[in-house]
Amino acid sequence: MKTLRDIETPALVVDKGVMMRNIRRMADKFAGHGVPLRPHVKTTKCATIAKLLLDAGAKGVTVACLKEAEHFLEQGIDDLLYAVCLTPNKLPRVKKLIDKGAKLSVIIDHIDMAEMAADFCQKNRLTLPMWIEVDCGENRTGLKPEDPRLIDLAQAIFDHDHLTLVGVLTHGGHAYGAGAVDDIKVIAHEERLAALAAKNRIESHLKVTTLKVSIGSTPTAVHGETFEGIDEVRAGVYVLGDLFQWQLGSHDVSDIAVSVLAQVMSVEEGKKVITDAGGLALSKDRSTQKSDQDFGFGLLCNENGQLFDPQAIVNGVHQEHGEIYATKQQPHLPPDMMKVGALVRVLPNHACMMAAPYDRYYVVDGDHVIIDQWAKTTGW
Amino acid sequence: MKTLRDIETPALVVDKGVMMRNIRRMADKFAGHGVPLRPHVKTTKCATIAKLLLDAGAKGVTVACLKEAEHFLEQGIDDLLYAVCLTPNKLPRVKKLIDKGAKLSVIIDHIDMAEMAADFCQKNRLTLPMWIEVDCGENRTGLKPEDPRLIDLAQAIFDHDHLTLVGVLTHGGHAYGAGAVDDIKVIAHEERLAALAAKNRIESHLKVTTLKVSIGSTPTAVHGETFEGIDEVRAGVYVLGDLFQWQLGSHDVSDIAVSVLAQVMSVEEGKKVITDAGGLALSKDRSTQKSDQDFGFGLLCNENGQLFDPQAIVNGVHQEHGEIYATKQQPHLPPDMMKVGALVRVLPNHACMMAAPYDRYYVVDGDHVIIDQWAKTTGW
Repeated sequence: MKTLRDIETPALVVDKGVMMRNIRRMADKFAGHGVPLRPHVKTTKCATIAKLLLDAGAKGVTVACLKEAEHFLEQGIDDLLYAVCLTPNKLPRVKKLIDKGAKLSVIIDHIDMAEMAADFCQKNRLTLPMWIEVDCGENRTGLKPEDPRLIDLAQAIFDHDHLTLVGVLTHGGHAYGAGAVDDIKVIAHEERLAALAAKNRIESHLKVTTLKVSIGSTPTAVHGETFEGIDEVRAGVYVLGDLFQWQLGSHDVSDIAVSVLAQVMSVEEGKKVITDAGGLALSKDRSTQKSDQDFGFGLLCNENGQLFDPQAIVNGVHQEHGEIYATKQQPHLPPDMMKVGALVRVLPNHACMMAAPYDRYYVVDGDHVIIDQWAKTTGW
Repeated sequence: MKTLRDIETPALVVDKGVMMRNIRRMADKFAGHGVPLRPHVKTTKCATIAKLLLDAGAKGVTVACLKEAEHFLEQGIDDLLYAVCLTPNKLPRVKKLIDKGAKLSVIIDHIDMAEMAADFCQKNRLTLPMWIEVDCGENRTGLKPEDPRLIDLAQAIFDHDHLTLVGVLTHGGHAYGAGAVDDIKVIAHEERLAALAAKNRIESHLKVTTLKVSIGSTPTAVHGETFEGIDEVRAGVYVLGDLFQWQLGSHDVSDIAVSVLAQVMSVEEGKKVITDAGGLALSKDRSTQKSDQDFGFGLLCNENGQLFDPQAIVNGVHQEHGEIYATKQQPHLPPDMMKVGALVRVLPNHACMMAAPYDRYYVVDGDHVIIDQWAKTTGW
């Protein structure tokens, strides 16, 4: 029997029981709405977890880079939506994926990209399925439903033999800035209505009735109440959960399934503990900085995933050092971690950022026994 | 001839001419002092660059994790100092490295770790060279020169047949918080004096005269004036340079040799440009937040590495999106980047954090022609 005491740190740990509960909760909600999920697997970057999501009813997965798409395709997961606006230099790799059998679709928001893609596809005898990204208020990429460029872009895609217009897609990412659950409910409405408005405008212009609608983010998926007219919902962080989603009201702290295992390298009795999980191991994400509770660079658990009493956070990081100081807010550091060689687990501010650099998950279920290892992908 | 237009983004780019100038400047300075460098290669994580450093006179390299040590040893670089305090779970991997021929030394600051290492080494018939880390004011790891535990730790290492006390090591990392170059000069003095004080105390207690002294950080190496009594200087960021070091006064902006190549995916004329280099590609490091100039998530150059006029920064990041907005500070975004498919290069706040996730450098020399590719290591 191998446990977390037998591996090297820093290491990425996932609690399977907690994760499966998260997966089932979201699957049950959307089964109730009769709307399939296409989970965003940029959070987990792991084909084993993607298969558990598909087993729970997901219709496919969403990826944030083509390296992810390759990882999933290699493991037989072929229904892939690449949901970051395409750039021209990625076209050859997109072609390779489609040639290998991926049912890959991409998103764009600019007519220049449609034209560059059309040229490439014509030269390479490729048909490329595309979604138009709609901006429902996030103000990142995408066109507003009322933007005249929306129709021009739709027409350009529709007209070109080598491009297929699948539908419209939006991301209610501004829910991450919401102050309260009621605000998230409003944003969930806006997200759905913006996508439907864009779809209706394009359909009425092109005289078609075939466009699909893809929406979603973890907060709007959790708190959204109506999904009528929606063809699929993309959410991703809910699978692992994190401190920021907890603060947003997406789930409880006990729903956080992912952590980084670290070992204590240095202690100053009562004052300071230094671990080997620093800025690279935890990421420098500070999502909770403006939350009700600021968790620094992560919240500390023991090796079994139980919160310390009193709670303690990672106050600072260097590249390979995590710093835990006694402060006014946490005057008494947990004695259990006050020993060179002690193991701690750090819950993330932002699961996607923390998990990204690791090449595997060590899988536990409620304690520190390793029941499995799951490979994941990294980089681009 | 391949150029930056022929590769996929995000990608890590190093300008060889600029880097070699950085390497030579530091090598010349320390050749003048008669003190060898042991550059910290956690910044670059690249054996090809390490060999260029050795060619320029470095006596060996410093690493921040054992994966780095393995990468360098595989490429024939065997003089390795692992300069993050050892934890017990890394002992088996340390042994493997030494068994494979690495002249590896480690650092510790706690007697418990000395005892655990001694037990392991005795059982495994290993002799482990150790440095004691001294805290010269950084307040991270290490013991103050006057701390009574310093002598106990030195005695414990000295007494054990399987441990060798190489010397004392310190890192003037608090220079990163210095307000002005004069403050850095003071910290450079403190760094040297703290290390020498610790060495003298231990030598006088143990009645030996053989201890080595290792010090260094990029700011204190650049601005330090006296290195008498010092056996080696560890600095790393100077090889690539970054915006934070520029703000600290370690070098000029034209000395920044590293950037991330990104491609524009979305534009809103005059208002907003979105690229494919986001929080993972640039890191979420915000080192310059409190500098005279806050560069957001990085300063933008064109594909040839020339700063745009007017200058522009990456204002925000999502996982795979970089956001460049027109603001009061930068009301006019450079027209050259206002086009889907345009290439930009982003100079980092903190080179070590930005370079970490990439598996290679695309090497250029003053323009956008790729003259080489250098493999690097990632992860732990």
